[in-house]
Amino acid sequence: MPEPERNHRLTIAYVGTRYHGWQIQPGASTIQGILEDLLAEIYQTRICLAGAGRTDAGVHALGQVANFFAPPQVPISRLPLALNTRLPEDIRVQHARLAADSFHARKSARSKIYRFQIFTGPYQSPFLAPFHHFLPRPLDVSAMAQAARAFLGRHDFTSFCAHAAGERNRERTVFSSAVIRHGHRVLFQVEADGFLHHMVRNMAGTLLEIGSGRRDAASIPALLAARDRRLAAPTAPARGLFLVKVRYRWRKDIP
Amino acid sequence: MPEPERNHRLTIAYVGTRYHGWQIQPGASTIQGILEDLLAEIYQTRICLAGAGRTDAGVHALGQVANFFAPPQVPISRLPLALNTRLPEDIRVQHARLAADSFHARKSARSKIYRFQIFTGPYQSPFLAPFHHFLPRPLDVSAMAQAARAFLGRHDFTSFCAHAAGERNRERTVFSSAVIRHGHRVLFQVEADGFLHHMVRNMAGTLLEIGSGRRDAASIPALLAARDRRLAAPTAPARGLFLVKVRYRWRKDIP
Repeated sequence: MPEPERNHRLTIAYVGTRYHGWQIQPGASTIQGILEDLLAEIYQTRICLAGAGRTDAGVHALGQVANFFAPPQVPISRLPLALNTRLPEDIRVQHARLAADSFHARKSARSKIYRFQIFTGPYQSPFLAPFHHFLPRPLDVSAMAQAARAFLGRHDFTSFCAHAAGERNRERTVFSSAVIRHGHRVLFQVEADGFLHHMVRNMAGTLLEIGSGRRDAASIPALLAARDRRLAAPTAPARGLFLVKVRYRWRKDIP
Repeated sequence: MPEPERNHRLTIAYVGTRYHGWQIQPGASTIQGILEDLLAEIYQTRICLAGAGRTDAGVHALGQVANFFAPPQVPISRLPLALNTRLPEDIRVQHARLAADSFHARKSARSKIYRFQIFTGPYQSPFLAPFHHFLPRPLDVSAMAQAARAFLGRHDFTSFCAHAAGERNRERTVFSSAVIRHGHRVLFQVEADGFLHHMVRNMAGTLLEIGSGRRDAASIPALLAARDRRLAAPTAPARGLFLVKVRYRWRKDIP
């Protein structure tokens, strides 16, 4: 009798620059595709990997989480090394553990934290360039911070959703939303129970217009109320965006 | 009458990963080559750029310095932007200023600081990978630090020179030489009045053997005295190496 399959949970970091995002697409190099191919080699069968966040092309991850079911033939402590020795060096499995069968990387997530990074100095360091949206002029960070606070709480985010028609429920709860300055860097970090398509990049694009003085800091509540994507700013570029962390009610995840 | 040429001094940062080093080579992409091509476009004449350090293929720079003579047709304050808008984003001119005619980026340098970075954790972050030599096991950092101190002072560095035959004077003065641990990172930083070919990477290679217990921490003085390249360790990889800073008697540099 074959051993029953176990639920494996991975924490993954990647530099998104070279990839067409997380999700498998035919003919494109994606993080999920590369990992599933490797898992298929290791387990000699097709493995379906569920990721917590479908990061866009060019978006980076410090702590993406994914899970898959497989027989326990590879000891969980050896799984990161088995994957990392075969992965390209811009993708790394940081941690692996067994989870309850009920654990699902996306559906079990209590919240996700994203960060959008902007560099406002005159010349960007070549070491920071792949990780920041470059805007070589000062931003009004207090106006951005005031605006960011208006995202807090439960709202319908239709105005910040790329393809609102495809989503039935466009309400999300934002637990934290802040803009800080760190030297020439301006960072927008937001935690919510879920994100609609392009939601963080649309929020960031609107904050960029507010920081540049092209939109009022107090305009967010009316924008949210309008539920009209055409009223918010263009989507900010993927380059500065990181999936920072996925949070779970972790007592439930441990078998 | 044409305006007399002025001596222009640039400070440059680059991620060396994609380049065949600083120095121009036919058929290879080098930092010096890319900058000279751009300067030729801007000044409509061939420009010879003298760099302070000939960094190897894959070596990074936080503060490379270079100088060139050209008519003062581009205001010095606008030169960084003129270059940066045309440079690939892994090369950035951080600063430009006019210097005395006697200033030469390499010959006027009082000292250069190099740093070799090692990552010793079990899995390297994909964000750190291009900037560290990866060695997934602990190093004896106190042995390495003791050995590094033995490089201090004036010595003949023939044992640490790749092509000693080509150098007439192999004596160099090391002003500082230290190894520190910073979490999983181990950093070797050295300042000297000059460096022979592959000298830092040969010092780093020997320190790596000492940190791994394959060579005695007290062996450096005998190695220096032997003046025999075959006695020191293999050259460490280029990947972890940075040209950090070039120091000048700066009062002389200002016209």
